[in-house]
Amino acid sequence: MTFTCPAPIAAKDKVLLGHGSGGKLSAELMRELFLPAFANPVLSRLEDQAVLEIGGGRLAFTTDSFVVKPLFFRGGDIGSLAVHGTVNDLAMGGAQPRALSAAFILEEGFPLADLRRVVDSMAQAAKRAGVSIVTGDTKVVERGSGDGVYINTAGIGVVADGVNLSAAHARPGDAVILSGAIGDHGAAILTQREGLELEGALESDSAPLNGLVEAVLAATREVRAMRDPTRGGLASALNEIAAQSGVGIALREEAIAVHAPVRGACEVLGLDPLYVANEGKMIAIVPAEQADLVVRAMRQHPLGAEAAQIGTVGGQAGLVTMRTAFGTTRIVDMLAGDQLPRIC
Amino acid sequence: MTFTCPAPIAAKDKVLLGHGSGGKLSAELMRELFLPAFANPVLSRLEDQAVLEIGGGRLAFTTDSFVVKPLFFRGGDIGSLAVHGTVNDLAMGGAQPRALSAAFILEEGFPLADLRRVVDSMAQAAKRAGVSIVTGDTKVVERGSGDGVYINTAGIGVVADGVNLSAAHARPGDAVILSGAIGDHGAAILTQREGLELEGALESDSAPLNGLVEAVLAATREVRAMRDPTRGGLASALNEIAAQSGVGIALREEAIAVHAPVRGACEVLGLDPLYVANEGKMIAIVPAEQADLVVRAMRQHPLGAEAAQIGTVGGQAGLVTMRTAFGTTRIVDMLAGDQLPRIC
Repeated sequence: MTFTCPAPIAAKDKVLLGHGSGGKLSAELMRELFLPAFANPVLSRLEDQAVLEIGGGRLAFTTDSFVVKPLFFRGGDIGSLAVHGTVNDLAMGGAQPRALSAAFILEEGFPLADLRRVVDSMAQAAKRAGVSIVTGDTKVVERGSGDGVYINTAGIGVVADGVNLSAAHARPGDAVILSGAIGDHGAAILTQREGLELEGALESDSAPLNGLVEAVLAATREVRAMRDPTRGGLASALNEIAAQSGVGIALREEAIAVHAPVRGACEVLGLDPLYVANEGKMIAIVPAEQADLVVRAMRQHPLGAEAAQIGTVGGQAGLVTMRTAFGTTRIVDMLAGDQLPRIC
Repeated sequence: MTFTCPAPIAAKDKVLLGHGSGGKLSAELMRELFLPAFANPVLSRLEDQAVLEIGGGRLAFTTDSFVVKPLFFRGGDIGSLAVHGTVNDLAMGGAQPRALSAAFILEEGFPLADLRRVVDSMAQAAKRAGVSIVTGDTKVVERGSGDGVYINTAGIGVVADGVNLSAAHARPGDAVILSGAIGDHGAAILTQREGLELEGALESDSAPLNGLVEAVLAATREVRAMRDPTRGGLASALNEIAAQSGVGIALREEAIAVHAPVRGACEVLGLDPLYVANEGKMIAIVPAEQADLVVRAMRQHPLGAEAAQIGTVGGQAGLVTMRTAFGTTRIVDMLAGDQLPRIC
């Protein structure tokens, strides 16, 4: 099933959970509120990271807040997620992460032992990604004005030479490559939150993608766009690329891997894996003649072992379609609604 | 009165409001939890901004989350405060702010009209400070898991040539200069929160200090340290400098300006203005022979009209003392306790 129920009109003068979903309402907030107010050419590019010319070099700069619930989940916790999320946004801009900030909003009464566990996890994740946490901040709010801990990380990185990535650079005929199976993060969080016990190991894929990106860029610099399909899932990330590039994207369902436990969880929860968040997967749009090279480069990296070409750029501009296993074609719209709050 | 009551020992395994006060408990959290976990030489400098060598230049990088209550207050709101706070942390590192990120944690049900007001205020503040908001993020949490809106801003700036500032650089004999009267921000927030109606205009001093810093650095590059005395007030900022430089600091009470309405509010609320937050004031520690030059440069700028030398570096290492108007000398300790939550 897809999420196409629009939010009730009457509620539209207030913030809805769906405004944080990474789908249509998030995009609306961006387009109608943030973009007009903050108007500047860098923000208007709508990438997951800003690229700035500073001191003769190109610097990537990005930020994300993390409000995931529960704080500790199979495969990670809010701390490692906060490091991976920002490392990945930098990596998707072709940047080698150099430094992170970490800002904590703590709820009064939050156990210091849990905070220590989160902080240690951040430190380990940063070490694994080869990045330092160089500056930070701590605020405390009263009981009932927060939920344990919220973390913001911002990051800066140096963009590799000869790389010029943008969600607006996809061209008809390009290959759409995905680094692995989808839905692991969202399915792990949601089943844990709902208290579902399912067979098989269901674990977040939360991981730093900068090493995988390095492997791709070592193979070729001819990459049009990279995105990590987080909130809103693969469907929303591809819709953003289709919209910004003014192209269609045609997917083949059988090329998109979904691990069996994720498929099972999605069936129980009534979710479509295409809309479920990933935290350790990337999309690369590359010229067709680079496709094999990029898939091979990804597969040689532990985080890209299941990489595959999942589709092609083409078809009606702005539209993402998928040829299903049954041979029919369906439209893959952007996430609408608020079914998946606090997934990251 | 000063704040010297220690937190109850039994509560010390949980986060207390005082952990966010910018005083002793905040410092303890930094020293015992964050520093050991994130160990790296940049963070260990304990400045309000990290300075990184990137691409041959020096880049300042900083972050702050804002949880101020109420969201709208006399002299500003959470939006302008979030811009000024991060601009000022960059400026205190001698950096010209270049780009900000803005990340919002919204509570479900928050009126979009209020969000628009906050965002417009951020945009205006950024324009005034000459900085662009180039990247951002929005998360939404359920009703009762937030408090309207929390904002994180991170910022990057380019450090001016020939400037080498650090809270560890103060030397005996240096002059301690303050750009204006203290306590305006904290007094405005607290009286409004308590619903106190006091005579006289009580208004936050929230303002971008990068222009004032430029004026100082245009007069001389011989500046040891700059700090904006925000959470924890003038007392806490000077204690940090004294501790990090291993010097004493001797203040003269009559040189420290406090506006009459702030003095009145502090009397009613039982607060010492030395511990009350400022959001548009700066401390500069400079060699004695530069003192007049720096005070003059500040006074020529609208935000430094009341600048004065308020004391001298000297006395027992690590200790801040103040010669009072009555001719006695008191110790000015760091803020302890949790009397001023959510001031920024």
